[in-house]
Amino acid sequence: MDFNLSGKGRRALPQPVTYLMNKGASGDFVSLAAGLVDSETLPAEEVRDLISGLLSERGHEPLQYGINAGLASLREKVRSRVAGQDSTSAADIPLERVVLSTGSQQMLYILTEIMVDPGDIVITSAPSYFVYLGTLQTAGARIVTIPSDRDGMRVDLLAEALEKIEAAGQADRLKIVYVTTYFQNPSGVSLSIERRKALLDTMASFTSMRPLVIEDAAYRELGFSGADKPSMWSFDDGGRNVAYLGTFSKPFSPGFRTGFAFLPENLVEKVEIVKGNHDFGSANFNQHVIDAFLERGLYDKHLSKIRETYRAKCLAMCEAIDREMGESLSYMRPEGGLYVWGDLGEIDTDMQGVFFERCLEEGVLYVPGILCYGEPESAPRSKLRLSFGPACAEEITEGIKRLSKAISSVGSSR
Amino acid sequence: MDFNLSGKGRRALPQPVTYLMNKGASGDFVSLAAGLVDSETLPAEEVRDLISGLLSERGHEPLQYGINAGLASLREKVRSRVAGQDSTSAADIPLERVVLSTGSQQMLYILTEIMVDPGDIVITSAPSYFVYLGTLQTAGARIVTIPSDRDGMRVDLLAEALEKIEAAGQADRLKIVYVTTYFQNPSGVSLSIERRKALLDTMASFTSMRPLVIEDAAYRELGFSGADKPSMWSFDDGGRNVAYLGTFSKPFSPGFRTGFAFLPENLVEKVEIVKGNHDFGSANFNQHVIDAFLERGLYDKHLSKIRETYRAKCLAMCEAIDREMGESLSYMRPEGGLYVWGDLGEIDTDMQGVFFERCLEEGVLYVPGILCYGEPESAPRSKLRLSFGPACAEEITEGIKRLSKAISSVGSSR
Repeated sequence: MDFNLSGKGRRALPQPVTYLMNKGASGDFVSLAAGLVDSETLPAEEVRDLISGLLSERGHEPLQYGINAGLASLREKVRSRVAGQDSTSAADIPLERVVLSTGSQQMLYILTEIMVDPGDIVITSAPSYFVYLGTLQTAGARIVTIPSDRDGMRVDLLAEALEKIEAAGQADRLKIVYVTTYFQNPSGVSLSIERRKALLDTMASFTSMRPLVIEDAAYRELGFSGADKPSMWSFDDGGRNVAYLGTFSKPFSPGFRTGFAFLPENLVEKVEIVKGNHDFGSANFNQHVIDAFLERGLYDKHLSKIRETYRAKCLAMCEAIDREMGESLSYMRPEGGLYVWGDLGEIDTDMQGVFFERCLEEGVLYVPGILCYGEPESAPRSKLRLSFGPACAEEITEGIKRLSKAISSVGSSR
Repeated sequence: MDFNLSGKGRRALPQPVTYLMNKGASGDFVSLAAGLVDSETLPAEEVRDLISGLLSERGHEPLQYGINAGLASLREKVRSRVAGQDSTSAADIPLERVVLSTGSQQMLYILTEIMVDPGDIVITSAPSYFVYLGTLQTAGARIVTIPSDRDGMRVDLLAEALEKIEAAGQADRLKIVYVTTYFQNPSGVSLSIERRKALLDTMASFTSMRPLVIEDAAYRELGFSGADKPSMWSFDDGGRNVAYLGTFSKPFSPGFRTGFAFLPENLVEKVEIVKGNHDFGSANFNQHVIDAFLERGLYDKHLSKIRETYRAKCLAMCEAIDREMGESLSYMRPEGGLYVWGDLGEIDTDMQGVFFERCLEEGVLYVPGILCYGEPESAPRSKLRLSFGPACAEEITEGIKRLSKAISSVGSSR
């Protein structure tokens, strides 16, 4: 007799991407698949010096339990920081509404838990962040996707989708609209300012439903030029409908697993209760380290450095693509983030396909685009995500050469 | 129109204990309520020196993402350590079955998620760990409690409860049997060796059900004398039915929020998938710190120190009780852990009662026993949990004096 799992336990299915990550970790491949950050850019020395000072100054406190919502001084800094980026007053949002989490992923998970029952609807753009798609599958959500273009989600098509949901009598089942607004994983595009506003206007015009809008801003600080847009959250009348999610994983260091959120007022208590059930607060030590890193002004210095690193590596990837693959791979040059989103035209990039097999033979890994679609049956099959995060410029160039060989070999065998 | 929450979102209700923790944090009270560890014992200096060396030796690695299951070298050390404590061979369990989490609380949460649907049954002892009771409430579990005595859960009464469940046609709804085997929070008692075996035998004799047995060993290393019992897990035929949960929060430092589990083989994949949905791995940095702490032999040195500290503080509390309260508070002197579990006879310790009110006036906080019962309607109302964890000996004595005053004042007004 086997364990009799819950519905969630039964829905939790292996993610194909795990296979890719394990392959990548084997060291036998040039991995352009992993969404890791560049190890060389991680501030190990700064952190070493910092922690030494931190433990002298703050004594035992960083080693003790924190609270569910996270370290108040870090939440204050996060609030001011985002307020500065959005050119809004820092006092706009009560501190209670700023909550820290184990990466922004945990907050995505908790918000999904408190909103979504099996069979409920979640809207994502197509393509979208595949880890969240996996979370939605475990939650039993029905995913409805909205196409996107170079300005992000096609908000003009959102109204249509909402009408359909309404017409089907499912307005009360729509629980979340999930949008990555900056340098999206995987497409690299940002939602335009017009569309940020239009999305909120569209939602407001449907009075039969009130989903939570989740703005995932994980890559906000990874714009190569440092140029920034106001968040969608900042257009939302005090953040009544939008949860704004950020993270220190990408711009600072993923090993500390610290993310943050601005929550709508009437979700704060629920999030804190469920967070208490999860872990009664993410690691306090980590929050102190990041707090001190910000306090000492090291954060912005570090950001300029990594922006330049990723800009250069992105350029290396794009130049290698142009040189090695010419027209066979089309893509749009990203202005931030960690990914180039490509299209191979006639080639099927799926893991069951010939091309993927050839890439394994050549020793290069990518993320098949199909994994990034919440409605895979209707998704294009020729897309792929190439990450310039962890690999160095030489590996990137080598990886692109190998991809190019695989393309030629598939082309000639067709 | 308000957000339309999920079933879980609606079930997530404020925990009374949050009120206590906030009161405690205000600094206006001697808190004998908080289950924190003693800040003075936290190894701040050792950690400072350690991290400095760690980042020189291991470079950027601790700052990068880890994997879902956690740092392999730490999982190996955990496995050997527990194997040593249990006098079993370290090779007994494949490393895949050792998984790290954000405190052991997160593993409790995930196991509950993959096992329990709303309306499913979970067996706990009475009293039990109240944070887990809150988790079960959010999960929508029906809690069935088994009384306990000085040897822990009354396993002789377990069979009766299982028969009742079976007779009611609910065998397939029993999902988890949750037992804290060492120095239980709140009662301070350990499950006797005979009962560890008897519990497994009892479960095995019910072939119509196969719940997961969760052995919570959070306080295992906090025995004052260092004496230890083999885990229940070690009697379980390779851990087919039992998940063994441990933590570094209590013996090392809660600020790092690192726990671990030995999982039954056929739950590993599910746990890893859901863990991936939660956070794709707890903070890697923290795991490196603990790994290095163990590697350098600092851990056992630290343990001896804190065992002595808690032994002395427990003694201070018990002596103060004997001196100040005589017969009015009965308790059993614990041999480990952080708590004295008392009984006030005729006095109702509930937060709505007069006694609690008097304690607030006197400036002392405790945890009302009723919060530790999964079936509160049938629970005794005169119990209370007194923690000697965070307070120093003087505060403990002062807290007991204040409790004593409150007892007298309630007694004289009756």
